[in-house]
Amino acid sequence: MNNSLKQRLAGGRACYNGWSLIPSPICIEGYAQLGWDSLTIDMQHGWWDYATATSAFMAMQAYGVTPMVRVPWNEPGVLGKVLDAGAQGIICPMVNTVADAQALVRGALYPPIGQRSTGPVRGPLSNAAPGYQGRANDQLLLLPQIETGEAVDNLEAILDVEGISGVYVGPSDLGLSLGLPAVMDQEEERILAIYERVIAACAARGKIASLHNTSPAYAARMVAMGYHLVTVGSDLGFVLHGAGAALAVARQTPETGARSAY
Amino acid sequence: MNNSLKQRLAGGRACYNGWSLIPSPICIEGYAQLGWDSLTIDMQHGWWDYATATSAFMAMQAYGVTPMVRVPWNEPGVLGKVLDAGAQGIICPMVNTVADAQALVRGALYPPIGQRSTGPVRGPLSNAAPGYQGRANDQLLLLPQIETGEAVDNLEAILDVEGISGVYVGPSDLGLSLGLPAVMDQEEERILAIYERVIAACAARGKIASLHNTSPAYAARMVAMGYHLVTVGSDLGFVLHGAGAALAVARQTPETGARSAY
Amino acid sequence: MNNSLKQRLAGGRACYNGWSLIPSPICIEGYAQLGWDSLTIDMQHGWWDYATATSAFMAMQAYGVTPMVRVPWNEPGVLGKVLDAGAQGIICPMVNTVADAQALVRGALYPPIGQRSTGPVRGPLSNAAPGYQGRANDQLLLLPQIETGEAVDNLEAILDVEGISGVYVGPSDLGLSLGLPAVMDQEEERILAIYERVIAACAARGKIASLHNTSPAYAARMVAMGYHLVTVGSDLGFVLHGAGAALAVARQTPETGARSAY
Amino acid sequence: MNNSLKQRLAGGRACYNGWSLIPSPICIEGYAQLGWDSLTIDMQHGWWDYATATSAFMAMQAYGVTPMVRVPWNEPGVLGKVLDAGAQGIICPMVNTVADAQALVRGALYPPIGQRSTGPVRGPLSNAAPGYQGRANDQLLLLPQIETGEAVDNLEAILDVEGISGVYVGPSDLGLSLGLPAVMDQEEERILAIYERVIAACAARGKIASLHNTSPAYAARMVAMGYHLVTVGSDLGFVLHGAGAALAVARQTPETGARSAY
Amino acid sequence: MNNSLKQRLAGGRACYNGWSLIPSPICIEGYAQLGWDSLTIDMQHGWWDYATATSAFMAMQAYGVTPMVRVPWNEPGVLGKVLDAGAQGIICPMVNTVADAQALVRGALYPPIGQRSTGPVRGPLSNAAPGYQGRANDQLLLLPQIETGEAVDNLEAILDVEGISGVYVGPSDLGLSLGLPAVMDQEEERILAIYERVIAACAARGKIASLHNTSPAYAARMVAMGYHLVTVGSDLGFVLHGAGAALAVARQTPETGARSAY
Amino acid sequence: MNNSLKQRLAGGRACYNGWSLIPSPICIEGYAQLGWDSLTIDMQHGWWDYATATSAFMAMQAYGVTPMVRVPWNEPGVLGKVLDAGAQGIICPMVNTVADAQALVRGALYPPIGQRSTGPVRGPLSNAAPGYQGRANDQLLLLPQIETGEAVDNLEAILDVEGISGVYVGPSDLGLSLGLPAVMDQEEERILAIYERVIAACAARGKIASLHNTSPAYAARMVAMGYHLVTVGSDLGFVLHGAGAALAVARQTPETGARSAY
Repeated sequence: MNNSLKQRLAGGRACYNGWSLIPSPICIEGYAQLGWDSLTIDMQHGWWDYATATSAFMAMQAYGVTPMVRVPWNEPGVLGKVLDAGAQGIICPMVNTVADAQALVRGALYPPIGQRSTGPVRGPLSNAAPGYQGRANDQLLLLPQIETGEAVDNLEAILDVEGISGVYVGPSDLGLSLGLPAVMDQEEERILAIYERVIAACAARGKIASLHNTSPAYAARMVAMGYHLVTVGSDLGFVLHGAGAALAVARQTPETGARSAY
Repeated sequence: MNNSLKQRLAGGRACYNGWSLIPSPICIEGYAQLGWDSLTIDMQHGWWDYATATSAFMAMQAYGVTPMVRVPWNEPGVLGKVLDAGAQGIICPMVNTVADAQALVRGALYPPIGQRSTGPVRGPLSNAAPGYQGRANDQLLLLPQIETGEAVDNLEAILDVEGISGVYVGPSDLGLSLGLPAVMDQEEERILAIYERVIAACAARGKIASLHNTSPAYAARMVAMGYHLVTVGSDLGFVLHGAGAALAVARQTPETGARSAY
Repeated sequence: MNNSLKQRLAGGRACYNGWSLIPSPICIEGYAQLGWDSLTIDMQHGWWDYATATSAFMAMQAYGVTPMVRVPWNEPGVLGKVLDAGAQGIICPMVNTVADAQALVRGALYPPIGQRSTGPVRGPLSNAAPGYQGRANDQLLLLPQIETGEAVDNLEAILDVEGISGVYVGPSDLGLSLGLPAVMDQEEERILAIYERVIAACAARGKIASLHNTSPAYAARMVAMGYHLVTVGSDLGFVLHGAGAALAVARQTPETGARSAY
Repeated sequence: MNNSLKQRLAGGRACYNGWSLIPSPICIEGYAQLGWDSLTIDMQHGWWDYATATSAFMAMQAYGVTPMVRVPWNEPGVLGKVLDAGAQGIICPMVNTVADAQALVRGALYPPIGQRSTGPVRGPLSNAAPGYQGRANDQLLLLPQIETGEAVDNLEAILDVEGISGVYVGPSDLGLSLGLPAVMDQEEERILAIYERVIAACAARGKIASLHNTSPAYAARMVAMGYHLVTVGSDLGFVLHGAGAALAVARQTPETGARSAY
Repeated sequence: MNNSLKQRLAGGRACYNGWSLIPSPICIEGYAQLGWDSLTIDMQHGWWDYATATSAFMAMQAYGVTPMVRVPWNEPGVLGKVLDAGAQGIICPMVNTVADAQALVRGALYPPIGQRSTGPVRGPLSNAAPGYQGRANDQLLLLPQIETGEAVDNLEAILDVEGISGVYVGPSDLGLSLGLPAVMDQEEERILAIYERVIAACAARGKIASLHNTSPAYAARMVAMGYHLVTVGSDLGFVLHGAGAALAVARQTPETGARSAY
Repeated sequence: MNNSLKQRLAGGRACYNGWSLIPSPICIEGYAQLGWDSLTIDMQHGWWDYATATSAFMAMQAYGVTPMVRVPWNEPGVLGKVLDAGAQGIICPMVNTVADAQALVRGALYPPIGQRSTGPVRGPLSNAAPGYQGRANDQLLLLPQIETGEAVDNLEAILDVEGISGVYVGPSDLGLSLGLPAVMDQEEERILAIYERVIAACAARGKIASLHNTSPAYAARMVAMGYHLVTVGSDLGFVLHGAGAALAVARQTPETGARSAY
């Protein structure tokens, strides 16, 4: 169960994460073939449940993409289950305090660091293989979301919690929390200053700075700024933007044909 | 249960049909809000089953888009079920002969034209409302697919079967059947000649000429040629093309930032 | 796998069949506790699929009610599957000819009468128990639906097909086929004459006369007329009528309270 | 996303809420057409999950009924998800203290009142439309359940929590908690006195008094007493009562027909 | 709702519990016919969700086996739901303190001992029958898992919490927590000493000592040691071991036949 | 999309096929890791549907096992769908005549041999890759089941149909059809003579002789006799036999411990 995303990040390479709201393993398999470094199954704002998420991890298995999950909440039951099913990274919403970050570690890592429960799952797969428990704590990525003013206040202390791999910025909730617009690709100076602080705090600790984006241009700009891992768009966004654009192009065309009134 | 697509087509307006392979009512609801004239749930080459198709029809209900289904095969059981669930149009694969077209009519229309069975379904909805049986035969669209050489040979006879509303051309199967490339947006002269023949045969009978496309440019060209109803792309296509293009754009960007090796 | 419905009918007792359109095992379990002689899972006009139908049979198992299925169509694949899952009776739509009835027998009974395929299903359950194949042909009930004028013309010949247990009248389709109203609880003289003919033809052959109803009063009248097995209402009908009636009663009440405007 | 239930209640009209335990969008669509002011998807004592609840909201969309959810527990993960999917009202079990009520508000409302997380869900739908976050806090109804002695003790303080819209009385749990019978339509004087206190406390604060009932007569009595919003029955109740009553009527009928022994 | 497992245990009989990770009611029905005293649906490390667990309970209903659930976490929402659906025993992971055990009792038992919420579920079934609330507290089995060093330290105090029926040892997590191998059928002296202490502590209080095993030999040894209830293997384990052994046997066979190269 | 099973068979190696009735991708993934040459998803006597079968193919993808399907019936709609989803082999029940075999080829192979319809499915996967249509006809395995006396009579003619890869013997149906016991691992001389005839007929044509077994010993004997591909047991069989054997072993043990009566 080598985590290829972790290896690439450790090698200094900027990585791109795909994002899925639609619970379709078919879609995920196509995504996985496109060359993304990781794919995140969004169980918070998306429609994935445990059975479909498991099928999604299986759909990724043959293509070397790292499976990640955004859990619906920082709750030990769901953390254990998605890791059992094969997730190699966790993005956890609303981690605002050191206590929140400690709870995340407790639910996601095995003793002696945490209290994750072990069970003989996914058949004789990697996570049930001999020695899995010993290696899992090193391989998993735990990325608490920084998305409130309170979380920004506690940023460095959250990063210092043992077992935390870095942070993942949630731009629209962060804006909403600070009384600024709830948009994804932020241009507010206060937000951009926070983005710089995140990079600096992570760099100082050898941890991962990551964030959510909706456009490739903004994602690339964040990579240029120093982020290690950036999300670009989502499956639901791509299909709706693609379908809307296609319909607009088609409708523009003059109807010059011999079409009868039917 | 007025069929808005049928009304628009009767008014001489070219119509655009969206196409869905991914069984996600969330996706369909978004599609329905974009202004498509109809949306087709593909139960042949897509992953929709009866329960999810029913939810898709419900997702469309508030937005005035005509629900259609491509059935997996010309089989009376599935024809009756998708119509019970609210489909107002049927695209039926591999209708190659007059007998195939008659079987389609028999399964999809009520007596005296066909033998569709009636039942008290979708609650007190439109299709269980008083008089539904009397109006359904007039409102439904039956579009057999012309996608083999044999079907082209029988084109006019198929169109002449009572209850058939027009034809829907399947370009890639048609190409394969004729020993030509199995592509969607065809440029082969033999195929384009068939396209013209389809328009002429439909125009002569006041029936609908429709076909499948994957790009808005080709779709618009088909409208200009005289087609009444054209499909543009599919949800799976939009998401994979969108995700691939976004990743390519993001990866092109030089990594100039202060990013540590992590 | 004694078929309790068959035993009761053989004893001369009129039997009542419940009908389900909503794919909810919870609902079925409640139904089964109410004392119905049989419950029919409607896979034609209802929303049941194979997995949910199997769960429905399990929900009935502890309560001694005979599980039946109305199949979506006279097709051997689905006949075999619902019998594998434990159905002890089949109601088959649109059996209009002797050939249709023979196809039903061929798909539903084992050799030497039919060609049903055998497999080790439902664990070590009754239908996988030693000797099951030898007893199944005697225990299953096969009830073709008489619901077109053509079927009425062939009524006696259909009843004479070996393996056919009786017939099940579908009133609304029968009306539609004859150019009469497509209603359930028929009062048309032509229909009532057919009902008498069904009873006479069945009585002459020692076979089962059964039909579909929507009200208990009409059902009781049919029993009094001589029908052996009658369906009364459906789960979807009961919930919608019950909810509508309750809302009407509640809304009639004068609002005399001290309720503030909020 | 105007909340029609909230508007009607604000206009002084008594409102009736339907209740669903059976996870069937087909059933919900029928319910929605009957004229209920709101429909509550019960995720605590019913069988709805997130995917089916979402389909239920879609089934209601075309009919102007306000979608509500009873959540399984006062837990921020599920609160966020059902609101993302389109619920406009929350009934939350076992809110016994001011802290419980504050947790409910924190999970269900956006900053600055709460900490609900925002995400691009249900496509370009109402709750993802521009300005949604600014309007949601005003439109949503939060109804904590008063169903223990402790909750009654804290009634007024719970109502005073900012963001709480009123209370929803759970009669059988309230009885059980007080050592009285666990029945729905209560006649105990101690309970009825609590009911009056609920009305008075709500009226004094301009908040909503609502409660659960199983019969239309009792519901109407509660409206006359001063309740603003009352639930009448449930889908599972209607189907089982309807099926039981129909079978009883049918079985009463003397069997006078010519029915052979078969 | 007599709990047959509880009766057998009270009679001094050692009982065997089957364990299921695969969400298949078909599999459960077969298991139930084999004569196990109880079957546990594992919602923590298995793939069961609420709908499939409910169907599993129905599959067991006719065979007199006691349905139990291992919940994913000690959370009141899920405890209430699985009990509503018919579970008669709860195995709860990671109960490490008296407070954890009290939370389990609060979520799973009705007042006055706990705060479980009551609702009219599973139709007119046993758990909605008159008097159910009064009997449930006596019939349910609550088995907190002892699987950390902290839990062992608090063993006797946990057993002393009113409403707790006994304990269930989780060997691999216990090993992991103590820095020993995370295996099921433990041979470590420190672990075996804990096993003896568990038996003694339960015997002193008239409570149930139970634990998890993967082999019948080890299970029998634990019964001989004094355990009342032992789990033997799991469905996923049986299928993978069986399939692996069968393939190995088949492959050993020399290929001596006349088989052509094809 | 190289078919590894076909390559191994062509190399003269006897191959072993696993068989699945339980619709669990988790189970399939474990199976796939055990080294089977192929795994067959049984959609006839098992509980797989289209969505779960697709997830099963994904679960196999990383492990080099050839995915096969037994279809519920020889029907073009389902043949096309399972091939779209990635099946590389088809076992088709009840192919009794040359016409049946021709129908199988027509539904499963592309023109010019058959009439399978092509569509852009499973994303940019192998079966949507350029040139897929040209290679599919060569890579797929079509194995009609010989399981009636009529099929045996037509054995050689069925094998001579272009596109047919061999035959798959169904022992229990074959027994039933011939008036012999409906068992899997047959010892009847008439059946064993047919088995020899199958090998000879296949060898003469360079086609595949395969059959169904339930024990590894019988499977090995069939390999020794000359069969190229043999099925050994099923997942449901392994779990029920394993669970039954384990319980029996455990129950045999004397209860000598200090166990209190509880």
